This record gives sequence, C-alpha cells and structure tokens, in this order.
Amino acid sequence: MGLGQDVIVELEAIVGSDHVRTAKGDLEPYARDATPLFRGVPDAVVWPRTADEVAAVLRLATRRGIPVVPRGAGSNLSAGTLADRGGIVLVLTRMTSILEVDADELLARVEAGVTTAALAEAAAAKGLLYAPDPGSRTVSTVGGNVATCAGGLRGLKYGVTRNYVLGATAVLPTGEIIRTGGRLWKDVAGYDLTRLLTGSEGTLGVLTELTVALLPMPATTNTGVAYFPSLADAGRAVTAVIADGIVPATLEFLDAKCIGAVEDYAHLGLRRDAGALLLFGDDGGADAVERSLTRIGELCTRHRAMEVTLAEDVARSEALLAARRCSLPALSRLGTLTILEDATVPRPRLAEMVGRIDEIAERYDVSIATFGHAGDGNLHPTCVVDRHDEAAADRAHKAFGDIFATAIDMEGTITGEHGVGAAKLPYLQARLGADQMALLRRIKAAFDPAGILNPGKLGS
Amino acid sequence: MGLGQDVIVELEAIVGSDHVRTAKGDLEPYARDATPLFRGVPDAVVWPRTADEVAAVLRLATRRGIPVVPRGAGSNLSAGTLADRGGIVLVLTRMTSILEVDADELLARVEAGVTTAALAEAAAAKGLLYAPDPGSRTVSTVGGNVATCAGGLRGLKYGVTRNYVLGATAVLPTGEIIRTGGRLWKDVAGYDLTRLLTGSEGTLGVLTELTVALLPMPATTNTGVAYFPSLADAGRAVTAVIADGIVPATLEFLDAKCIGAVEDYAHLGLRRDAGALLLFGDDGGADAVERSLTRIGELCTRHRAMEVTLAEDVARSEALLAARRCSLPALSRLGTLTILEDATVPRPRLAEMVGRIDEIAERYDVSIATFGHAGDGNLHPTCVVDRHDEAAADRAHKAFGDIFATAIDMEGTITGEHGVGAAKLPYLQARLGADQMALLRRIKAAFDPAGILNPGKLGS
Repeated sequence: MGLGQDVIVELEAIVGSDHVRTAKGDLEPYARDATPLFRGVPDAVVWPRTADEVAAVLRLATRRGIPVVPRGAGSNLSAGTLADRGGIVLVLTRMTSILEVDADELLARVEAGVTTAALAEAAAAKGLLYAPDPGSRTVSTVGGNVATCAGGLRGLKYGVTRNYVLGATAVLPTGEIIRTGGRLWKDVAGYDLTRLLTGSEGTLGVLTELTVALLPMPATTNTGVAYFPSLADAGRAVTAVIADGIVPATLEFLDAKCIGAVEDYAHLGLRRDAGALLLFGDDGGADAVERSLTRIGELCTRHRAMEVTLAEDVARSEALLAARRCSLPALSRLGTLTILEDATVPRPRLAEMVGRIDEIAERYDVSIATFGHAGDGNLHPTCVVDRHDEAAADRAHKAFGDIFATAIDMEGTITGEHGVGAAKLPYLQARLGADQMALLRRIKAAFDPAGILNPGKLGS
Repeated sequence: MGLGQDVIVELEAIVGSDHVRTAKGDLEPYARDATPLFRGVPDAVVWPRTADEVAAVLRLATRRGIPVVPRGAGSNLSAGTLADRGGIVLVLTRMTSILEVDADELLARVEAGVTTAALAEAAAAKGLLYAPDPGSRTVSTVGGNVATCAGGLRGLKYGVTRNYVLGATAVLPTGEIIRTGGRLWKDVAGYDLTRLLTGSEGTLGVLTELTVALLPMPATTNTGVAYFPSLADAGRAVTAVIADGIVPATLEFLDAKCIGAVEDYAHLGLRRDAGALLLFGDDGGADAVERSLTRIGELCTRHRAMEVTLAEDVARSEALLAARRCSLPALSRLGTLTILEDATVPRPRLAEMVGRIDEIAERYDVSIATFGHAGDGNLHPTCVVDRHDEAAADRAHKAFGDIFATAIDMEGTITGEHGVGAAKLPYLQARLGADQMALLRRIKAAFDPAGILNPGKLGS
C-alpha cells in the first residue's frame, strides 16, 4: 500500500517539497469532500502551481499506474473528488490568477483554482456578469465548476456553465497539454473538446486554465415571492408564466417542509401556512424588469397564490433570495446527516415529481423536504437523519434509489447539476443504458489509457 | 470497385428497393455538395426512413468495411458530405416528421431531415423562436445543422446551434441506437455526448432525431444600417456598442467590394462611396429595441459613421437584412467559381483581419471581398474567379492558406461555422496541434472502430 519513497521524491522534485504532503494528519482533510458518508484516504496530496507541473505529475502517474484525483475546493456533493483507490489528490487551489477580464471581448481568462465568486467579482468590477451561480460559488473553483458543468439559480434564462466556457487548457492523463477553443464565440474546428471536458468530472483531463464568456451586467435585478396552497398550484403558475412568453432569470421553489425549516432557522417572516413558496426574479432594464415581475405576480394570483410580494428594494430582494440559499443549512440543522439530492424532470412535471417524492419518503419512513429550480425542473430532495441511526440512513438510501428511478420514468435524470461522481455511478446505467455506458468507457480509454485519472468515477 | 450485388440486395432488404440507387445518373447528384471543386462519386445512394433502418445499414457497413457518408441537404461548404472514398451516401431527407412543438416545455422534437426553416415555422406558429439561423436554413436540415454546429446571424446574443440541442438520437457506426440528453435544461449524467455529436460532422454517429430548445418569440425586431468611411471605423463602433453594454441580436458587416456587388445585383439603394456597411438589429420589447437601436446609431455616428438609418417598418427591415443575405449570390455573379470561406478572429481584431485579407488578395492577384458577422468575428472572405482559369484558382487556394494561417496567428480559427469536412482537414493540425489531432483520432476510433463513417473527414 501507499506510494514508494521514490515516487514521493519525484513528486517533490516536480512541485517542491512544500507542496507534497503524506502525513496522516495532512491527508485526513482530503479524505472527504462535501458528500456525506463517502470517504477515501489518499496516499499523498500534491499542490501544483502550473500546467507543466500537472503534466509532470500525470506522466509519472501514468507510468507508475497511480490514481490521481483532481480537486478544487472539494465542495462537490457526488463524491466526485474522492480518492477511494488511494493515490494522489491533486489540489489546484494554488492556481488562483485571474489572468484577464476583457470588457471589449466580453471574456475572462482564469486559472482553474480561482473561486467562482472571485471571478464574478472581478467581472462585476468591470461592469460584467459571469452568469453561472452555483450555490457553492463562494468556495467552489471555476475549474471545479467547469469539471462538473455547475448549474445554479439562473439556468433557464442563462443556461449552465457549459454555455459560458469558450476555451480550456487541459492536461491529458498521458501528460500532453492541450488548448481547446479560445476567445471565439464561433469555432467548429474539431470535435467539441471544450464541451466534452466540461462535465467530465476530472476523468478525462485536468483543467488548468479556462476562458469564459461574460455578459454586460444587467442594469437592475428584482425579486418577488408568491405563496401557494400547494406545489401543484405553484407548478401551474410556472407553466402560465412560460406560456406568457416570460423566461425569468430566477424561478425557485420551496415545499412546505422547507418553508418551515428556513423560517425556524432564519426568521425571515415566511408564511408557514403555505404549501409552497415560489421565488421569482428577473434582470435587465428597469422598466422591463418591473413589467416582467408585475406580470408574473398577476399570473401567480390568477393561479391561486395566497399572497404575492415584490421586493421594494435591493436589500429585501437579497433577503428573499437568502430564503432559497439557506434552505440547505436550515434543513441540515434538523439532524446530523443531510443527504442532498439532485433529480431533474421536465419542468411541467415538477409538482408531480415532488408528490412522488413525498410518497416515497412516507413509504420508507424518512423525512424528505424538497426545494429547487422550478424554471428548469431541477429538484433538490433533501433527507435529514441521525448520523448514528444506520437503519434510517439505509432507508434514506433506498428511498433515493426509488426517486432516481421515478425521475428516469418521467423522462428526467439522476443528476441535473451535482454530477455523477462515485455516489451516482451505480444509478448511471439506468439513465444511459448499456450501450451508452460502454461508449463512455471507450471515450475514457481514448483519453486515459492507463485509467489513472479519477478512477471509479465517470467512464468506469 | 463498387459494392457487390449481395450488398445491394441487403441494402434493398433494409430500406426497400425504391430507396437504393446505384445507376450512374442517380449517383451524380450526390457526387457533390455545395463546396466548389470537390467531387466524389458514391457507389450507392440510400434513403432510410427510420433509426432502425440506419442501424441496419451501419451494421452492414461496419461488417463489410464500406464507407458511409451521412447527408442532409448537402448544402455544406466544407466538402463534409463527399463520398470521396466511394461507398454509400446515406440521405436522411425522408425523415421529415416534426414530432412535437411544445410551448409549455419550450422545445421541439424533430426527425433529422426536417429543414431548419420548417422547424422555425412550426415553432413560430406557436409563438416560439428557434434561434439558430444559418444562411442555408431554407434548404439545410436540422440534422445537418446539428452535425456541423451551424451558426448564423444571431451568434453573439443567442449563441450557435450547440446551445439549442437538448437531446439527440444517434446511431453509432456499429449499429447501437443511443439517446443522449432529453427534455431537460440541466442534465450532467455522463459525458456530454449531445455536444460531442454536435459539430462532429457525421463522423461519430448518424443523427436521426433531435430535441431542441425554443424561446418565446420576441415581441418586435428592428434593423438599422450605418455606413462608414472604413472597416476600421466600423470595428471601433462595434467595440463601442459592446462596451456600452449592448449585445444586439444582429451585427453584420459588408466591405466596400461587397457593397458594390450587392448594389449591382439587388439595387437596394446602398451607398457606394462607403468603405464599410454595418447592419445592426435587435429584438425584444418594443421600447427596449427602440432604445437599443437608437443608442447603437448614436455610437456609430460618434465613430465616424457617414450615415445611419433605422428601418421605419418591417418591410424595410427585411430589405436591409436582404443586403446581407444576398452578399453571396451577388458576389457569385462576378465569376464562375465562388470560394466562400469562414475564418474567425476575436471580435476586436476584425478590421485588422480584413486588412490582412486585402493584402493577401493583392499579393496573390485575386479579388477577395469580405462580409460576415461583426458581432462574433466570423468573417466570410469570398473569392470569385473564372472556373476555367486554373492558375487563378490555384492562387486563390494559396491565398486562403495564408488567410487561415493569419487567423490562427491572431488567436482565431480556420472555421467558425462551416465545418472542417474534407476541405479544411489539411489546415486543422495548424489550429489544433499534433496532440489534439491524435486525441481526435482516438475519440473517432472509440465511436467507429472500423472507420466506416464519413472517412477522410474529422477524426482522420
């Protein structure tokens, strides 16, 4: 077990001895990511500074057959950065340069370890918007966001991370450094490797630099909230909004259990008698935003909303968004083990899906609250149990198996934005079928003949 | 040479004898696509009706090592559907069902042979917009547009075809039928095969059905035109527009040679004394569009525009767009051989690139006029020569070689939207490098172990 001393010496020669750690206490923080219950202790943690250093590490690993798990902030929820076969965790958090933010070209170029929030702030300082806004954005890295094709609250109007990646520098497992795409909105020279790397979860290459598209910052943003007797009513209101020709920037929901948990936690003054809360927001010119939100409010009222409120100022707008953003911490307080999931269904079937989730939870005698993105059908059913109650954890596990199967039955998917990782791999074939699984394995082998890069994840 | 009679019999058994043609006169129309100078006669033309028939043809082809070239309308400009190694041209134009247009879900599902215009019309009938609008859209198919990741006039604001493909049914060369993606805006279960197939130019699989995203139809659209003393002035105006936070739907340019050719051809009343024409358009709410176009007009005037006119009605707006859309036919009249190219550079370097193109044209003593997409730096330098003047055609060929090299030097690419095909393959390594070329070949082999699907194109 473990890496030979010769390997450690070689790693130290590549990145410097300060940037290789093998002591038990240094490895422990890298034995987990943000996924509960999953754990895998690496043999070494290595912090490279450049793509050349990454290439040298990967060449060594391919030559010696050593697993390498690339990692940004480790904030993923799919056990995607778990060294469950030992080997090296390659942490990219020293690569934090924002290389450029170009307002003329509407793009930024950053090293992979820059946090998404830092990129967004650098863009905002030049009056530009980096649109992807995953919940983890204050800690998660751009490299990690691209590797998982992170989503967020603005998916319907703005699309997800893949829509914003213009180019990447990636190191292949065999050590070649490739540059895909670039500073161009249109480029069809070759297979779309930029998009293939996006969402490949560190199994095809290590991303070291990204070029991303920015947008002019919308002049104004505003938010409103509507309470409904039931999620089915909220679902009908969402359908009516889309049918009215409105694609708002934000369209989020909380079910009744989430509303209660958030109110207990944050005391925002939410209505506890509602069956569902719909949070809606839009951005753009001030008059367009006001018109859009007013119209959404009218449509909510027409579809049985108990109450509709538009935020009268930015502070109140932020407070409303906080209700959605704190759903997870609010629910997490209810137990010692929180399992947050990520099933997705076609938008019109959202309320139906939440109904099915509630039935499944009841059947398995676990408590599952659901919040998520009503605009794109991306649900986050969340189960909270006592960490020491193994029977309950087991029932939760089985309940989620049923939830994924139900999502697939409804033409949905097992993960909308969190990724497959080690956690969802057992469910992937049910979604993709055997032929597509075999194809993923052949693609993986085309990039990683020795199978050293994030083994046991996508492509395995 | 040719296919054995046993193969023909088997093909007839799969698709019916009416849908297999091998007579010389029947093959000739499929020996060319829209690319001048390129030609390759197939041994058979086959028109399948279903994915199952496509699968049976491909299984046969893989078993017997027969090249298969998938083809929609054959309107591509990169010799991408050329049977230059003989074999079967597989024409998908019998697969023309629009399976659904769903206004609640903002999506359509179509067979691959539906024309892009037919899809756009079916969407418009339900108040929805299919955003990609390549110049070929009245004849080209959705399958072909996805296979080439077609662009168009709305690339900067709306993105290209890849941004609108939600899911695909594809037949692998070995006969498996896979379904990627689906009715979802967020789905990260597996590698992004949907995007990998998009732009793969029929070398990885045969697309038989596509699910595409639609948008609410914008309430209004309007267009304006500005004349400038030089393209450099027009380029500075474009930069000023973007810097002002405006990302208009359309931002097209014609150089002086194009203006003259279009005016000779269509008598639209264009100003012949201008060095460049900038066509700008936007869509959305009426007040927002008016504000946007008025502001663009002001910025053009501030950057030395000789004249700025906003279209006063829809008919005039259409007439202005026609000036851009008829650039190619107008130029084609000037000779008997038209070579339309597709180099792309970062947007701020557009005028510089056109200057370089003019220098190159002069050096090789050929006439090259340039029009294109100022919003996304996608240029269409167009050379017109006499078909019988082989020396001129040869000089044109060399000039384009220099143009591609120049585009790459300027961090651009050899093709923004037309594709690589057989025509650009000789230039691809200069853009991608040897390591990435080798990777493309390994990916190709992962899909197509026998190398039967569109051989000699991408991935070769």
